Amino acid sequence: MTTVGPKLSIDGLIAELKTLGNISEAEPPVVTRVVFGEADLRARAYVKQLCADAGLAVSEDAIGNTFALWEGTDPELAPIGTGSHIDAIPNAGLYDGCVGVLGGLEAIRTLKQLGFTPRRSIELVIFTAEEPTRFGIGCLGSRMMANALTPEKARNLRDKQGRTLDELRAWAGFEGSLESVAMPLGRFGGFVELHIEQGPTLEREGVDIGLVTHIAAPASLRITVDGEGGHAGATLMPGRKDALTAAAELILALEAAAKATGAIDTVATTGVCDVFPGAVNSIPSRVRLETDIRDIDGARRDRVIDSLKAACIDVESRRGVTITLEQVNADPPATCDAAILAALEDSAKAAGKSYRKMVSRAYHDSLFAARIAPGAMLFIPCRGGVSHRPDEYASPEWIGAGVQILARTLAHLAS
Amino acid sequence: MTTVGPKLSIDGLIAELKTLGNISEAEPPVVTRVVFGEADLRARAYVKQLCADAGLAVSEDAIGNTFALWEGTDPELAPIGTGSHIDAIPNAGLYDGCVGVLGGLEAIRTLKQLGFTPRRSIELVIFTAEEPTRFGIGCLGSRMMANALTPEKARNLRDKQGRTLDELRAWAGFEGSLESVAMPLGRFGGFVELHIEQGPTLEREGVDIGLVTHIAAPASLRITVDGEGGHAGATLMPGRKDALTAAAELILALEAAAKATGAIDTVATTGVCDVFPGAVNSIPSRVRLETDIRDIDGARRDRVIDSLKAACIDVESRRGVTITLEQVNADPPATCDAAILAALEDSAKAAGKSYRKMVSRAYHDSLFAARIAPGAMLFIPCRGGVSHRPDEYASPEWIGAGVQILARTLAHLAS
Repeated sequence: MTTVGPKLSIDGLIAELKTLGNISEAEPPVVTRVVFGEADLRARAYVKQLCADAGLAVSEDAIGNTFALWEGTDPELAPIGTGSHIDAIPNAGLYDGCVGVLGGLEAIRTLKQLGFTPRRSIELVIFTAEEPTRFGIGCLGSRMMANALTPEKARNLRDKQGRTLDELRAWAGFEGSLESVAMPLGRFGGFVELHIEQGPTLEREGVDIGLVTHIAAPASLRITVDGEGGHAGATLMPGRKDALTAAAELILALEAAAKATGAIDTVATTGVCDVFPGAVNSIPSRVRLETDIRDIDGARRDRVIDSLKAACIDVESRRGVTITLEQVNADPPATCDAAILAALEDSAKAAGKSYRKMVSRAYHDSLFAARIAPGAMLFIPCRGGVSHRPDEYASPEWIGAGVQILARTLAHLAS
Repeated sequence: MTTVGPKLSIDGLIAELKTLGNISEAEPPVVTRVVFGEADLRARAYVKQLCADAGLAVSEDAIGNTFALWEGTDPELAPIGTGSHIDAIPNAGLYDGCVGVLGGLEAIRTLKQLGFTPRRSIELVIFTAEEPTRFGIGCLGSRMMANALTPEKARNLRDKQGRTLDELRAWAGFEGSLESVAMPLGRFGGFVELHIEQGPTLEREGVDIGLVTHIAAPASLRITVDGEGGHAGATLMPGRKDALTAAAELILALEAAAKATGAIDTVATTGVCDVFPGAVNSIPSRVRLETDIRDIDGARRDRVIDSLKAACIDVESRRGVTITLEQVNADPPATCDAAILAALEDSAKAAGKSYRKMVSRAYHDSLFAARIAPGAMLFIPCRGGVSHRPDEYASPEWIGAGVQILARTLAHLAS
């Protein structure tokens, strides 16, 4: 397997990443690809064409999860999966998710060029809507695949414009029954996801590869504050039930609760704050917050949620507003598979790449893939730890090392 | 003039108010009519037709201020003006502004039916964009008419989509030079605006009419907080420069500063809070706030602004964000004309209506009309003091009393 390195076509892969990045709702280099939006559909078409060109058999499920199969000599065996997502939050960059999809494809092409013949099939997966932008819930495709979101609950999902998942997936051309998306335990013989770290550790330490042992447990809460609107000039301060000043207290209470654990692994964010009616001379009558709370320790994370709930009760009684709190999800952390981690470690050693074990603080499809298959992730560095921004960057060398280790590991697992 | 009462066609006026309310960007009864939007243009056409039907000569200026003239027997004299606005903030109701426009028209029609012949012309004015929704600055039409906003500064105004005032007014069909909008002092012989109180005093005290002696001094500040974005899971709390938690502190600091004056007349509101990029799993990198600060005491209001500025400096240094503060406007308070107030008082007495003198805490076109003519306002009650909401309400009796006093006053001033 020592020839994997030289055969890698990193220039071609970088060009493909850039082409994919140009498919955006925003002006490139800003990447915005919300699931089932026009840019998402064009990006899917581009990636499917690349898979077909590589001789893979492409299929899709009812939610748009996309599969590109390289059949092994023993097709009865569960395939080895690899992949990630190509949807992107508003104002994102080129690499989050896409490195795992196009890098996975490049790993497969490299193995093919080397004349490698897999015993188990190798299957590239492009998961639908890893990002929660449209429906407020992350990892929609992998979550449904792992049956961690029932079709019944999925049917209740709506975007901000009130359109249902069923309406939007039908519009995007995905029409089968949602019941068909869930897959049984053992659907994959193993699953390996390549991803940028989205944190600064690898770059800072000059390490090539991160072997992810645990994926942090994220929770997402949607908070609606209902107050009383009115004219900003004529409504005196004592009588006000301003939904935005109440929401401001909650935003700060959440931040304080995350800091108060004293643990570096606790993070909490309010990323969405929609104000209604949203006019300079009108007291806000309703504010909708979306919050994200994570920790590698599930119990500690839940104590932050409890603090936020206590703040809601306090603000409600002091300000006379009504606060409703919906827990969109609160997923348990995932532990990666020891055998796959060992295979990744062996591959890194054989390729002469440095590596370290680490925890993923970001959310990944592997969190759910790990429920139906032994799974693990490998991280490559990203500059400054920056992600979810247009200046997100991973060098061709970093990407090349990641694809090389991934290819070696897939070959090992599929042999 | 005792016959003014019985001649009033209040049913017809209420029907016209409802018809106008149905011209909305939102689903009626919710009224949203942003200036130069499609609904605003339809509403203008409706009101102009009513004016033409009443035999008035309709004209428009370059910014869309609309004039409907009933020529007097001595057309060389400066006309007596009345009027208000028909644009409406998002999620508004039927009466704010519209009562002054359609009620002013009804007052003119009533005088015509009575066979009254004015010596001075009487002119109904529909001011463009009293509401700051689109351009972030209130009373755009009356402000430019009073030369309180130069054409040069007006040309720099943009809406949220970046479209300039010139683009939008051209699209709406108003194409003259902005330099032609300003009017000289003395353009009107007097100006009287009928409006709902937008506060609870008149209804609570059971008084028919409010005679407005002063209009409070509003100021509007736009605050932009620039922090650092990043992934909500991977960016640890200590390294963050979250623009939204910084903005939350400013929202609360402004509220506290307004309360700290101890004066019931000080009010402050953050009505707009736009978050970028606005995804649940992304740390906000930029937040844009729009704030509104008012007082009948200009110096006390400016002390609240100073407190807000101090909070910006404090938050900037503690949180490592960059805060820019733009004072959109800070207008001086207006004092209403004693002679017109006396005419209003005489009219109220003659009609047997109860009245009280009061201060206007809300912003009105009369604030600027008072710069080019002796001016005053009369208020009618609105239920519960509610305004800028779909449930804003003024009874036919309240409106009838207001129109009756307005008609008597116009007749007196034009004689």
